[in-house]
Amino acid sequence: MRTGADLALIRERKPLVHQITNYVVMNETANATLALGALPVMAHAVEEVEEMASVAGALVLNIGTLSEHWVEAMLIAAKAANRAGVPVVLDPVGAGATRLRTETAKRILGEAEVAVVRGNAAEIATLAGRAAEIRGVESIRAEESGAELARAAAAHLGCVASVTGPVDHVSDGERTVALANGHELLATVTGTGCMSSAMTGCFLAVAGERPLEAAAEALIAFGVAGEDAALGAKGPGSFHAALYDALYNLDPESLDSRAKVEE
Amino acid sequence: MRTGADLALIRERKPLVHQITNYVVMNETANATLALGALPVMAHAVEEVEEMASVAGALVLNIGTLSEHWVEAMLIAAKAANRAGVPVVLDPVGAGATRLRTETAKRILGEAEVAVVRGNAAEIATLAGRAAEIRGVESIRAEESGAELARAAAAHLGCVASVTGPVDHVSDGERTVALANGHELLATVTGTGCMSSAMTGCFLAVAGERPLEAAAEALIAFGVAGEDAALGAKGPGSFHAALYDALYNLDPESLDSRAKVEE
Amino acid sequence: MRTGADLALIRERKPLVHQITNYVVMNETANATLALGALPVMAHAVEEVEEMASVAGALVLNIGTLSEHWVEAMLIAAKAANRAGVPVVLDPVGAGATRLRTETAKRILGEAEVAVVRGNAAEIATLAGRAAEIRGVESIRAEESGAELARAAAAHLGCVASVTGPVDHVSDGERTVALANGHELLATVTGTGCMSSAMTGCFLAVAGERPLEAAAEALIAFGVAGEDAALGAKGPGSFHAALYDALYNLDPESLDSRAKVEE
Repeated sequence: MRTGADLALIRERKPLVHQITNYVVMNETANATLALGALPVMAHAVEEVEEMASVAGALVLNIGTLSEHWVEAMLIAAKAANRAGVPVVLDPVGAGATRLRTETAKRILGEAEVAVVRGNAAEIATLAGRAAEIRGVESIRAEESGAELARAAAAHLGCVASVTGPVDHVSDGERTVALANGHELLATVTGTGCMSSAMTGCFLAVAGERPLEAAAEALIAFGVAGEDAALGAKGPGSFHAALYDALYNLDPESLDSRAKVEE
Repeated sequence: MRTGADLALIRERKPLVHQITNYVVMNETANATLALGALPVMAHAVEEVEEMASVAGALVLNIGTLSEHWVEAMLIAAKAANRAGVPVVLDPVGAGATRLRTETAKRILGEAEVAVVRGNAAEIATLAGRAAEIRGVESIRAEESGAELARAAAAHLGCVASVTGPVDHVSDGERTVALANGHELLATVTGTGCMSSAMTGCFLAVAGERPLEAAAEALIAFGVAGEDAALGAKGPGSFHAALYDALYNLDPESLDSRAKVEE
Repeated sequence: MRTGADLALIRERKPLVHQITNYVVMNETANATLALGALPVMAHAVEEVEEMASVAGALVLNIGTLSEHWVEAMLIAAKAANRAGVPVVLDPVGAGATRLRTETAKRILGEAEVAVVRGNAAEIATLAGRAAEIRGVESIRAEESGAELARAAAAHLGCVASVTGPVDHVSDGERTVALANGHELLATVTGTGCMSSAMTGCFLAVAGERPLEAAAEALIAFGVAGEDAALGAKGPGSFHAALYDALYNLDPESLDSRAKVEE
C-alpha cells in the first residue's frame, strides 16, 4: 500500500473520472471526487459515453437507479474504456434485490472487463453465486465471512472484489486484505457506498496496474476521512458536510500511518 | 396519536420505504428516511418496480419531475403495492401548475388505492376540484381554510388528505387534526414538502392501519425536527444539514409532549 | 449596475425561474434560487415545458447531463419562452468535450433566442469557434484573455456572453465588464457554475431589459456570497452549506459597495 503517495498523485494529475451513476448520489459522488482532488464528469447519453470514457482516467458504473437506456450506455462506455485501457469499476447497487439489477450487473461483468467490483456483502455474494439476503439496497446477511467472500468472489468473477461493511475486505483471489478504517455514521448517509466506488475510480486512475492496492487505498482514504468527519458531527447532516471537508483535507504524509490494514 | 411509540417502532423494524420520486430531492428524501430510522430504496424502472414495491413497508409516489416512463412505473408500482397490502402515499407536486401534473395525480388516484395524499393547499385543492392558485410548485392561494380543505379533499378523494403549510391539516373526511409544529426555515429549502411525504411513508409502514394518525405523526416528527434544526441555523444551508441531525436525534420519549395538535 | 436594487426586486416579486438542468445539480440550483429569494421550478417533460416556460420569469437551460428527450424539451421550452418574452439563459456544460454537447448548445443558440450564455472559457470559446481545451467539464485552456473572449463570443453569438473563472467577464459585444468577486473554494464544489447560471436567470427575471447588467449582477451577488461563505469554511462541505446561508443573508444595501467591477 502507498495510499499517501497515490493520493498525492491524484492531486497532482487530477485524473478525469467518468461516472455513470444513479440519480440519488450523482451530486455526492461528484463532490467526493472533487474533494479528493480528481475531476468528475457525469455523462450517460449513448451518443457521448464512448467519447467521454475513452479519454477518462477511470470509468465508474453504478446501477443504483437503472433503466433501459442507461444499461445500454454503461455497456457502450465499458467497452470503449476497455479498448482505451481505462480501468472500470462496477458498483452493483441492489444486486440480489431485483432481477433487473442482478442481471444487469452480471451482464456488465460478462460483456466487459471490470477491474474492481465494489459492493456490500449481499451484493457481492449474489454476483458470486452464493447465498445472501438484501433488503432494498442494504445487506442483511451473507453466508461467509467478508474475507472468504471477497476471495471467492474475486476468483469467481476474475476481478478484484471489494466488499465493504464494518470491516472491509479486498481480494484479487490470491491476496486478501482487511481494512478497518471508517465510522458508523457512514451508514447513516445515503450514497457513502457509492462514494467509496467513486474513490476507487480515483485511485485506479493513478494506480491501475495495481488494482487490489488501488481498491484498498481508496477505502483507507475514505475511511480515514470518515473518522475525521465524525469528530465534531452531531448526526448524519453535519457528518455529511464534514466528510467533504475531511476528504479535501486528507494529509498524504500521515495517511499510511493511520491505515488499519491486515493481510 | 402515539408519535413517540411509532418512531421507536420505525427504528426497531427499519421498514423498507420504496420511493419513486423526483430528481431534485431523491438524495434528500433518502437521507431523511435514513436519518429517521427507516431504509429508503429508490427504483423507477418498469422492469423492477413491481418486485420492489411488493416487498416494501410503504410506497411513496412523487410527481415532481415527471416523464412518460415514470408515470407508467408509478402506476405499476402502486397496483403491485395494493395487491401486496403495502400502503401508498402520493405527493402531487405541482398539480394545478400544468395539465400533465394534474392529470397524472388524478390518474394515480383513480387507478390505485392511495392511503394518504400529502401536498400543499393549492395542489390538494386542485385534486379536490376546488379553486386554487399555484406558481410553479408553490401554493399561492386556496379558497378554503386548511381544515375545511383537508376534510373536503379526503371526502372527495376517499383517502386521508394531508395539507401542509404554516399550520398543517390532516383529515380522513370525518376526523380532522391541525398540527402547528415546524419552522419557517423549512420553506427556504427545496424538497422539505417531499421529505414530509417520505416521513409519511415511514410512519405508514408501521401504522398503516391508522392512516390518519400515521400521516399526522409524520408531520409532528418532521415539524419537531425542523424546530430543533432551526436552533443554531444561520440560513437555509446550515438548517438543511441540521435537519438530518435533528431527525436522527429525535427522542421518542419527549416527542408526544412536544406535539402541537388540535382536533 | 444596480445589484442591490435588483436583488431587492427579486425578493419582492419572487419570480418563477424555470430550470431544465442536469441531474447532478438540480437540488443545488433549486436551493440557490430559493436562498436568493426567487422560486425555482424544475420540469423537463415535453408534455409540460411549454406551459411552464410561458409563465416563468426566466428559463435556464443547462446541458450538463443530456439525452435525446431532454434536448427536445429544451428546444420546445426555449421557443415557448421566446414567444412569451421570457428571457433564456444557456449553460453549455461540457461544450467542447463531446460532439453531442457542442452540437446541442449550438442548436439551441441557432433555433432560439438566448439572452445570456454563461459558461467557462473553454465552453464559450468552443461555441464562438475559437481554440480551447476542456477536460470533462473543466476548462483547461482558451487562447484569448477572458475579456477578449467574452467580447468576441457575444459578437459571434449575438447575445450576452458571461465567461466565468478566477475573474469573470461579461460582454454584449460592445460593453465588456470584468468582475473579481468570488473565492477559490467555489471551484471545489460541483455545480457552482450551474448555480451562477441559475442566479443569472433570477436577475434576468427582474432586469431582462438590461441583460448585460443582469448577467453581471448575478455574478457579483454570487461572488459576494462565496466570499461570505468562505469565512468560516473548513473545506468544500462546510463551504457548500454556508453558501446557501450567504445567499439568503445577502444584504441589498451593501452589495453595490462590495462589487469588484471594472469596465
